Amino acid sequence: MARSLVVDVHTHLYPPAYIELLKERKDIPYIRPFPPSNQLCLCNRPPQNSSAQGSANGSSKVPPGRILYRHYYEVDEKIAFMDHHQIDVSVISLGNPWLDFMPPDTAGDVAIKINDETNELCKLYPGRLFFFGALPLSAPESIILAEISRLKTVSQARGIVMGTGGFGEGLDDPKLIPVYKALAESSMPIFLHPNYGLPSSVWGSRGSDYGQVLPLSLGFPMETTIAMTRLFLSGVFDTVPDLQIIVAHSGGCLPFLAGRIEACIEHDKRLEADGKLTSDRKTLWDAVRNNIYLDGVIFDKTGLKTAIEVAGVDRVMFGTDHPFFAPLDEGKTFPAMTVNRDAAKEAFPEDDTESYDLVMGGNAVRVLHL
Amino acid sequence: MARSLVVDVHTHLYPPAYIELLKERKDIPYIRPFPPSNQLCLCNRPPQNSSAQGSANGSSKVPPGRILYRHYYEVDEKIAFMDHHQIDVSVISLGNPWLDFMPPDTAGDVAIKINDETNELCKLYPGRLFFFGALPLSAPESIILAEISRLKTVSQARGIVMGTGGFGEGLDDPKLIPVYKALAESSMPIFLHPNYGLPSSVWGSRGSDYGQVLPLSLGFPMETTIAMTRLFLSGVFDTVPDLQIIVAHSGGCLPFLAGRIEACIEHDKRLEADGKLTSDRKTLWDAVRNNIYLDGVIFDKTGLKTAIEVAGVDRVMFGTDHPFFAPLDEGKTFPAMTVNRDAAKEAFPEDDTESYDLVMGGNAVRVLHL
Repeated sequence: MARSLVVDVHTHLYPPAYIELLKERKDIPYIRPFPPSNQLCLCNRPPQNSSAQGSANGSSKVPPGRILYRHYYEVDEKIAFMDHHQIDVSVISLGNPWLDFMPPDTAGDVAIKINDETNELCKLYPGRLFFFGALPLSAPESIILAEISRLKTVSQARGIVMGTGGFGEGLDDPKLIPVYKALAESSMPIFLHPNYGLPSSVWGSRGSDYGQVLPLSLGFPMETTIAMTRLFLSGVFDTVPDLQIIVAHSGGCLPFLAGRIEACIEHDKRLEADGKLTSDRKTLWDAVRNNIYLDGVIFDKTGLKTAIEVAGVDRVMFGTDHPFFAPLDEGKTFPAMTVNRDAAKEAFPEDDTESYDLVMGGNAVRVLHL
Repeated sequence: MARSLVVDVHTHLYPPAYIELLKERKDIPYIRPFPPSNQLCLCNRPPQNSSAQGSANGSSKVPPGRILYRHYYEVDEKIAFMDHHQIDVSVISLGNPWLDFMPPDTAGDVAIKINDETNELCKLYPGRLFFFGALPLSAPESIILAEISRLKTVSQARGIVMGTGGFGEGLDDPKLIPVYKALAESSMPIFLHPNYGLPSSVWGSRGSDYGQVLPLSLGFPMETTIAMTRLFLSGVFDTVPDLQIIVAHSGGCLPFLAGRIEACIEHDKRLEADGKLTSDRKTLWDAVRNNIYLDGVIFDKTGLKTAIEVAGVDRVMFGTDHPFFAPLDEGKTFPAMTVNRDAAKEAFPEDDTESYDLVMGGNAVRVLHL
């Protein structure tokens, strides 16, 4: 029997035009060489959201950002990674902070350039690469909507990538409704990715002693969960019932906290006084089963089983977060691939290959029309 | 066959001395009557950690704090609640912020007074009430350690309750090590409870539109998870290997994020440079299986199953969070009891009454010597 397709829906690539854009910048996000090795580093988070990166507090033994390995920008490295790990198809996306920092007057043109360049990279490997486009969110609404319409016609585009900031005021910003409506009408899902994490004050005065563990392991999923809960509470899934969102990192903490969130909603005096607790309201469970997909980047079988049980086995899609979580040794094997694949293997009984195949690729093929 | 004991390890009671203390205060935390109804309200979170409570932004339809129902302070209400819901034993604790606000010179005496008063309340109902004592954390270390020694001799005390703040600098504060050591040597577990949540900036400009949903449903568990992860990263479970912590709200998000936290640790360049990634290091999984217990206040069978799978069926203990999550109708039934009990029923196959009984009471009886 033929092996089912393995699809990676959470995998980043910075196309050359984006690398050039960041090299020219003086403020974060930027790419520049750092002493003593003068390796190129990508600094993409402001100091207030990082316990060390990009700040003067970082240990001199550690670069003040992410070292810009070839994996970050070379499409042949992506393919080599896919081949080594038996990934058939990748749906690539820009990493944070996408185009959110662009001046309003140039954001639209830069989005076209970067999306088109990404499309050309994808076309180099027919059937193997697709992408989530980047939106010029700082541009006027008409420009954003035009890029959504245009992306619909771009051959390898299968949705858009968006951070939790939206226009800077979060995903529950009513000004985003036209964007959500345009995406829903175009049947383009949002791949929702965290942006800057939480304010570094929450990591405490010893936060930087723990490197990037707190902002990466907790900041990102918590930011994602807050953003998604705010979005849900704003009623967007009633206003735009066809909105589809694929949430990075298995939804942050959303699957585990869904019961608590619903309990707090049911008991909230303010929501009750505002008449929002009607018996026919859309619950978070409804949203998770109708509007929300989760990737499988959770690094543990129990976490993955939780995601699958909450969202449904037809709504979780394997991902690797490549090129992050690089090999721990001199080899080529990325633990983020093997740990997350093994989690999927262990999440199901050995004879339930159907469920395993859905999570590893079947769901992505169906939802993203790959 | 006799029904196994049902034990509630997460249930709050404010003894009269504590109520009087808060009534005399002018700053948060305080208890005071609020117009128009002049009902007594408990305000226990500063405005910067609340999206509405205690601030001028609150809807006039909603009290600016928690209405101080009799459930909060009358021990006979606790017993009535237990009888109505078939709870045999409760291990009561003060709610946040405990005694953390006390002046250093009086904190010790107040702790003795409140702990002794709580003990007397428990003794009114032999075998049914125990408690986690409150520590005078603002007092000099010798006073704190003396109260730990003393509590060991107080008949109904079974551990201590502590917030995530510790001495104000978090649980990874090295100054807490003597406290942890004294607790471990006394075999007294910490019942760890969230305190103030997250800074309200993370809830966005529309946060108060959603009442208290964001700070309660997300702020509390996220604060708990951050505190526990910082504690773990500080190496306290190596320094004090017998420290035992019962984490409220099923660990916040810790069970779901444990895999991600471990992955981020393994990949952290700073921890690697600091020589902390030795092969014999205590992992978070080790800590969860040796030092950490979880309560069962998660409001969902999937969440509870996650907690059980991560910590082990012998390390999860039922709780209700009474008197919060009050009845939604005019009746006496608290959903936080029934939803969390039903979650435990649904978490196991129907014939696995042994596991159900462990979670509902057996673990608490064994661990807390009830």
